[in-house]
Amino acid sequence: MKDSHISLAHGNGGSYMRELIETLFNRHLGNSNLDINSDAACINLLPGELVVTTDGFTVDPLEFPGGNIGTLAVHGTINDLAVMGAYPKHFTLSVFVEEGFNISVLDRIIESFALTAKETGTTVITGDTKVLRRGEGGGIYLSVTGIGIRPQGVQLGFNEVKPGDTILVSGPVGDHGVAIMLAREQFGFRGKLKSDAASIQPLTEVLLELACVRFMRDPTRGGLATVANEIVRGTGFDVSLNETNIPVRDSVYTVCDALGYDPLYLACEGRVVAVVSPEKAEKALSCWQALPSGKEAAIIGTISQNRAPQPYVTLKTTLGGERILAELSDDPLPRIC
Amino acid sequence: MKDSHISLAHGNGGSYMRELIETLFNRHLGNSNLDINSDAACINLLPGELVVTTDGFTVDPLEFPGGNIGTLAVHGTINDLAVMGAYPKHFTLSVFVEEGFNISVLDRIIESFALTAKETGTTVITGDTKVLRRGEGGGIYLSVTGIGIRPQGVQLGFNEVKPGDTILVSGPVGDHGVAIMLAREQFGFRGKLKSDAASIQPLTEVLLELACVRFMRDPTRGGLATVANEIVRGTGFDVSLNETNIPVRDSVYTVCDALGYDPLYLACEGRVVAVVSPEKAEKALSCWQALPSGKEAAIIGTISQNRAPQPYVTLKTTLGGERILAELSDDPLPRIC
Repeated sequence: MKDSHISLAHGNGGSYMRELIETLFNRHLGNSNLDINSDAACINLLPGELVVTTDGFTVDPLEFPGGNIGTLAVHGTINDLAVMGAYPKHFTLSVFVEEGFNISVLDRIIESFALTAKETGTTVITGDTKVLRRGEGGGIYLSVTGIGIRPQGVQLGFNEVKPGDTILVSGPVGDHGVAIMLAREQFGFRGKLKSDAASIQPLTEVLLELACVRFMRDPTRGGLATVANEIVRGTGFDVSLNETNIPVRDSVYTVCDALGYDPLYLACEGRVVAVVSPEKAEKALSCWQALPSGKEAAIIGTISQNRAPQPYVTLKTTLGGERILAELSDDPLPRIC
Repeated sequence: MKDSHISLAHGNGGSYMRELIETLFNRHLGNSNLDINSDAACINLLPGELVVTTDGFTVDPLEFPGGNIGTLAVHGTINDLAVMGAYPKHFTLSVFVEEGFNISVLDRIIESFALTAKETGTTVITGDTKVLRRGEGGGIYLSVTGIGIRPQGVQLGFNEVKPGDTILVSGPVGDHGVAIMLAREQFGFRGKLKSDAASIQPLTEVLLELACVRFMRDPTRGGLATVANEIVRGTGFDVSLNETNIPVRDSVYTVCDALGYDPLYLACEGRVVAVVSPEKAEKALSCWQALPSGKEAAIIGTISQNRAPQPYVTLKTTLGGERILAELSDDPLPRIC
């Protein structure tokens, strides 16, 4: 690239834009499905149901311990497909980048995106770039659509969930939220905690093979407590979580204690919550624990018939009490995923 | 909605966000494929090739004569599928909206998006909303992915184009660009010109039925001259355009003359350029002219074997001269599509 920073000319359809696409985007993302001379892509997919997801990504800072907005976008999109029981195949990538943005940072972000896609066996099939006027962009935003294939016969969803079912989580919660907080360095904290951002697809795949799973979701914005509330709203049943069993790292507790946050409401980007049949819960747990990304998995709660007129999420605390985990209305830590 | 303006809480996964999704997005966009309780959608499609496109939308002003950012997003996405020979079926919608944005404007934009989708027989199957911090958003950005089906056997592309082929345009060029300029009211001009933003799918469909079309593209950013340059770059042949035959409205000429713009480089959002076999060019023209969106269609040029070592786009001017239409490097009118 001749230029070191993005200008409005990089978004206007002319030779600057072509140079950006050819020498930066295509260098990293090029593959046989991606035709940079066309505004769309044709793909052939294996038989099965088509599963489609879309997500906007904005994070501050753009680069953080354990990833950047590019890796986050790949993992976040894969994870939304994986919890549907799908095998992620393709992405579209829409970039909004602000005039004046450093092209070497853009290069790192797109390179990370490409490497992460490659690691997960996925490809970018089409993309678009818009340049935002200086002062109107917050740096860079990505919007990614993911396309996956779900094998015939997979049945997942709130209506599959039954009282007595067991709830598992694949690893410690809140790492991503706290890692982003530390990376911002606004609170005078420092630490070695990394974001948990990762593909959960190996985790969802083993549960599908066990044929024991009723519902899966990745606890991103709003964290584990929000997924629990979504289950309650979607099924009408109570969710009881056991605080003693919910894995949370000491460093996450320390930061949360100091700042008054609840780790159960903090975002993860590489965890999955699954509702499984009680007979197969132990087997599911041991399958997860045998995977590198599931070593710290745990059984954390159960689904039960609602006792009160309204169904609730209740948390059995480590002190032996019980409290309601309410739905979040606002979030103490905006823009982390 | 209880609130009149967007706050960060509307993007944080909690009850405010749910209210926004349920009472605004779902009210307008709801359909049997859209599950607002899930981050992805499953779809069943007819046999054929899957065609996928993605596009980011940012326009200033957000509402303009002939449309708004919502209608533009639907038309722009449909048109990128249509020029591939596909039938548009589904959208994903990713919204970036700034804290403080007026919810009634958001409501109008999403309502327009929904009505335009309905008119064109398309549906939104999944979506996402991110709230940007005040001062970092420029109001609202949309990113839309479109999914369409292309019947088996359709062959379109640069490698189908042959010397001797005829170039058509479906209507006057530059209306959208000038309409946006007038809507900005920065130059002291006023006028009744409307954006040409519309679906070109009826136009592409008749050409496919005639089995005469080799290549199609919608002249958006960079206008007709940029599409002509893309054909030259993609095929290695010369493109000769005849200025006398290129339809341009008088009001567009007037504004361009006064401000020093060339209408051939201004964006359209409801036109299509097609390269067709010379034997069927007149038939293709009359088919277009029989459609409401093609009344002012014209034959505007030809493809020829390149004369110079480098292929070029040349314009036979109304005065009888010839000039090269160079590739754009910057654009006089940023952010219009």
